[in-house]
Amino acid sequence: MSQLDAVLAHIDADQPQALERLFQLLRIESISTDPAHAAACRDAADWLAADLATMGFDAARRDTPGHPMVVGHGAAEADHAQGPHVLFYGHYDVQPVDPLELWTRAPFDPALEERPAGAVIRARGASDDKGQLMTFLEACRAYRAVTGALPCRISVLLEGEEESGSASLVPFLTENAGELRADLALVCDTGMWDRNTPMITVGLRGMTSETVTIKAADRDLHSGMYGSAAQNPLRILSRLLAGLHDATGRVTLAGFYDGVEDLSAEMRADWAKLDFDAAAFLGEVGLSVPAGEQDFPVLEQISVRPTCEINGISGGYAGPGFKTVLPAEATAKMSFRLVAGQDPEAVRDSFRAYIRAGLPADCSAEFSAHGGAPATTLPSEDPAYQAARAALSDEWERDAVFLSMGGSIPIVGHFQEILGLNSLLVGFAQKDDALHAPNEKYDLRSFHKGIRSWARILHRLAG
Amino acid sequence: MSQLDAVLAHIDADQPQALERLFQLLRIESISTDPAHAAACRDAADWLAADLATMGFDAARRDTPGHPMVVGHGAAEADHAQGPHVLFYGHYDVQPVDPLELWTRAPFDPALEERPAGAVIRARGASDDKGQLMTFLEACRAYRAVTGALPCRISVLLEGEEESGSASLVPFLTENAGELRADLALVCDTGMWDRNTPMITVGLRGMTSETVTIKAADRDLHSGMYGSAAQNPLRILSRLLAGLHDATGRVTLAGFYDGVEDLSAEMRADWAKLDFDAAAFLGEVGLSVPAGEQDFPVLEQISVRPTCEINGISGGYAGPGFKTVLPAEATAKMSFRLVAGQDPEAVRDSFRAYIRAGLPADCSAEFSAHGGAPATTLPSEDPAYQAARAALSDEWERDAVFLSMGGSIPIVGHFQEILGLNSLLVGFAQKDDALHAPNEKYDLRSFHKGIRSWARILHRLAG
Repeated sequence: MSQLDAVLAHIDADQPQALERLFQLLRIESISTDPAHAAACRDAADWLAADLATMGFDAARRDTPGHPMVVGHGAAEADHAQGPHVLFYGHYDVQPVDPLELWTRAPFDPALEERPAGAVIRARGASDDKGQLMTFLEACRAYRAVTGALPCRISVLLEGEEESGSASLVPFLTENAGELRADLALVCDTGMWDRNTPMITVGLRGMTSETVTIKAADRDLHSGMYGSAAQNPLRILSRLLAGLHDATGRVTLAGFYDGVEDLSAEMRADWAKLDFDAAAFLGEVGLSVPAGEQDFPVLEQISVRPTCEINGISGGYAGPGFKTVLPAEATAKMSFRLVAGQDPEAVRDSFRAYIRAGLPADCSAEFSAHGGAPATTLPSEDPAYQAARAALSDEWERDAVFLSMGGSIPIVGHFQEILGLNSLLVGFAQKDDALHAPNEKYDLRSFHKGIRSWARILHRLAG
Repeated sequence: MSQLDAVLAHIDADQPQALERLFQLLRIESISTDPAHAAACRDAADWLAADLATMGFDAARRDTPGHPMVVGHGAAEADHAQGPHVLFYGHYDVQPVDPLELWTRAPFDPALEERPAGAVIRARGASDDKGQLMTFLEACRAYRAVTGALPCRISVLLEGEEESGSASLVPFLTENAGELRADLALVCDTGMWDRNTPMITVGLRGMTSETVTIKAADRDLHSGMYGSAAQNPLRILSRLLAGLHDATGRVTLAGFYDGVEDLSAEMRADWAKLDFDAAAFLGEVGLSVPAGEQDFPVLEQISVRPTCEINGISGGYAGPGFKTVLPAEATAKMSFRLVAGQDPEAVRDSFRAYIRAGLPADCSAEFSAHGGAPATTLPSEDPAYQAARAALSDEWERDAVFLSMGGSIPIVGHFQEILGLNSLLVGFAQKDDALHAPNEKYDLRSFHKGIRSWARILHRLAG
């Protein structure tokens, strides 16, 4: 029996104990956004530091101005002392549980429930992120139990403020950059493509967000006295916003697509195999026809194509009844999702230039910049990513897929900027895990095969 | 000396007494919107009923659920007993006086102030509408003093809720329609074109107002997950609103201009003489370039051309900071100013059809009707209007002008609908009278020549 087989066998045999450990962590009410739960957050950090210590980590709760971090460092087996050093990231804090009346059981009283599709672990945090982070810790524990050491140098960073804004994260990373630097970050806070297909997220869109206010007369006017003769900022704003897309759904801003590359033929072929059900994706929210760029399939529209969206418009009278006002100004909040090759500030500049060029006489525009962050592209060609892909494919007996996400995961950017680290984004959540909602669950299969997956990934990374 | 000359001479001689009577009325704090001033409103009504009685009117305060009306009926000289019967309308209530600290004297302590351009009567209500309504009553008084009777049958209706919504007006007109029916209404609540040019308002625009809500997905969506692939109601609304006008400022709705006629060559020629200063009109509110239909001068844009205006837009996130939401719906409040020939419901139908035809897949529109009222055109060719024009031209030694107004005067519609009466809209207010604002005034010249104007109008109407 190979060392890996022994570790996997240990994981299988230790499953009841692993589940009980997860239940202990799930019973701690570590809701980070609620100050009344600060002690519970500290308890969760202490529990994790103690658990890491049992498997040979030099681990401690590390206080911050907010909720504490947990940092642990584990040495590798002698054979791998010079191998890659990985930094695992997860978070022990959870979302609030309101509305409590919608839960079918108490959210901090975890239990295994049998369901037609298989057993699930029901509790707040079962998936996000206590269940996920424990898949990694259990893999480390099994290695330690079987081999007496970890398969490679492993550091662990567990956060307690991910669900409440991560106020302490950047200062902590900055102050402890020397200690935390490694070769690769492992992040377990994402999901699988579907119940049987593991996924590695290798692209995250960036964003430029911006508020624009169009102004005309120096006061609100009466539409009976000034209507049509005076510029109406709502009309100007509507016209300008309407011009941001052409009839095919393409964004019209000058240079917007500069540097944007089509999906590689290889990835497009991979994605085609996924059999993404665009009709089901849209149907779930009451829609049926894709509204984005006509030349791209929905899966690309929502992940690897840049977008321009209006997130809010306000101006004039919006209350009940009616008021015949021509407002002095009108405002729109805009966001642009960016992909590799796009410069957030160039997009902002192009938007501002477009608005300014379209202003009629007597109108002015004021702009206010919100965020601006470029897209993140992770090196899927890198041996570590290929190793992780092979390990996942072995465990799930199906090719793991490299995918891009439409949103962003801030920790990935922080690791790149502060620690110079790429992140390997692997997770075992399912779309129906009810993250942030009542009756959150984690499939027992995700938990079990997640642990086995990490054991395989560590084995491959350690070479 | 003709009878009219005798009446005018009496008016001139009686000026100090007329001013003192106006001051008495101005001292009554008849702010209709403030319940604390209800007794003052009744005092003003009583004062007016008593004053009407002194000149031979059968007059009384008439209580309503709100502030009282005053109604008076005066018989004509025997010679004119079969002549036209006029119903004069004015209102004795006034606007609140806040902010009091901006007044240069107590608002209910009227005084004559000498100013470079001539003496002014300073007080709340000096112009709107106590000063204006007293011009008519003083003309009646002078006729009665000189001839012993009124020049024609005159009824008077004075309202006490014009500045606070006129809640009692329609019920009162309806209940007393038989008593109030006459041949022509005289309304003294408008102004002069400029200091030297008298004006008769002969057109008032109507209005259709409407709220439209565009809906797409059945819930708010995250723009990182659904952006571009899902319809964004803000984007659809912007596109639809942007299409309501063409590049020349014309409204694009099907049939919108059906029945709309250009200003007659005669009126256009008259108006050209007025030397309307569009630059000054726009400059006063910080604008410089007309924004309406390119083919029409500003004065026509704001008075005799129909318009389409957006009075409010709301949807998505409008608070501080940013939220990457795709809202489930977006709303606009629209108003259409209508001119003679336009049907308010046809305009509403055309707008709704335009919106529905422009909706992409998965989007729906909900509509909510607010007001709908056709434009009012008064019969400027009618002998009564021609008589009034001649009388005003005599008094001011300058041709009186027939003009149309961009807004609406509700009493005109009520008189047409309930009493079947056209209104002759004549007034002597100036643009700088500070109606509804601190330091309201009425030119002494407006008061004096206003009285003389009404004497001349009554003389001509009585034939």
